[in-house]
Amino acid sequence: MGRTSDARDRILDSSRRLMRTRGYTALGVAEICAEAGVKKGSFYHFFDSKQALTVETVDGQWTEERRSLEASLEDADGPVDRLRALIECLIGVQRADYGESGTIHGCLYGNLAAEVSEREPEVRRRLVLVFDEQVDMIADLVARARSAGLIGGTGTEHALARALVAQIEGTVLLARVRNDPTLLDDVWPNAERLLGLG
Amino acid sequence: MGRTSDARDRILDSSRRLMRTRGYTALGVAEICAEAGVKKGSFYHFFDSKQALTVETVDGQWTEERRSLEASLEDADGPVDRLRALIECLIGVQRADYGESGTIHGCLYGNLAAEVSEREPEVRRRLVLVFDEQVDMIADLVARARSAGLIGGTGTEHALARALVAQIEGTVLLARVRNDPTLLDDVWPNAERLLGLG
Repeated sequence: MGRTSDARDRILDSSRRLMRTRGYTALGVAEICAEAGVKKGSFYHFFDSKQALTVETVDGQWTEERRSLEASLEDADGPVDRLRALIECLIGVQRADYGESGTIHGCLYGNLAAEVSEREPEVRRRLVLVFDEQVDMIADLVARARSAGLIGGTGTEHALARALVAQIEGTVLLARVRNDPTLLDDVWPNAERLLGLG
Repeated sequence: MGRTSDARDRILDSSRRLMRTRGYTALGVAEICAEAGVKKGSFYHFFDSKQALTVETVDGQWTEERRSLEASLEDADGPVDRLRALIECLIGVQRADYGESGTIHGCLYGNLAAEVSEREPEVRRRLVLVFDEQVDMIADLVARARSAGLIGGTGTEHALARALVAQIEGTVLLARVRNDPTLLDDVWPNAERLLGLG
């Protein structure tokens, strides 16, 4: 058992690891506490409920992921390369899963959206926010690529960005149900088609 | 209480209705029986477990949906119109949901894939089969459209068909989490982009 301040972080870390694999309903507070090495009493000192933990789990995952996405942009040159870097970073989580455990666990946000959209309004609001921010990041790059004359096609930047996020979520779902990481290789070629690139 | 032969069908009907909304884990056998007006003892006369019921629920839903998809093809003329009819039929379930209840419940197969892929191997095998059959139906039309010189683009018929299924699943997920049916209007324009049409 570490210091109290560590306990909260350990609970959040365990929740992120377990929730993506096991989902929301099947995952109990006791299991999260056991994995985190924290007593159940401590859990309720930090979080009001599993729902409250889930909101913070989504927030924490997205804060970290957004940081990785922003970092991925710095290494790329020009809006099209940046779009590709962003998309590769978004699906990189799945490749890393497969590399480490031999199993694609899917997208935390997509998994939760499919499972609890109608049951947990506060979780749902956070998921909408995460998808909106992903769409905004992509739409910004699509607008830059279009201004630079690098992509053609029709559709507003936001509609195209939503199409890319949908393509990623759908492909990750299909890759997960088959546990086949090679399906992820199609995301960028399909993004090029959606954007009228290449 | 109807005849015994009805009880099985009523359990399956209730399961299809409830599982798409409530998911797998949160839905209990007792709730399904209550909705179906069937005693719990009867349930276990017909089904070994909730897992066994879920396998039959997926099979039953897909058998009926495939019939609707095939019927939608008969009213359409030529492979591109048929592709559009097929896609509109696949997302029509969501529009019907919204029209009837004001809520988009998502795709039964996608919801289950996101929730139980790693926990219920038999359910997963059925989901893979359903997605494979959807891909095959679309790939057949893509091949016909290509032979007729109606679509250009690169990519094998099956890869393009998978891209369309992924676009549908991803868009339905985003439409569900926002409960916004207007997002579904983008599926066909995005299908055109993926296929190099229009």
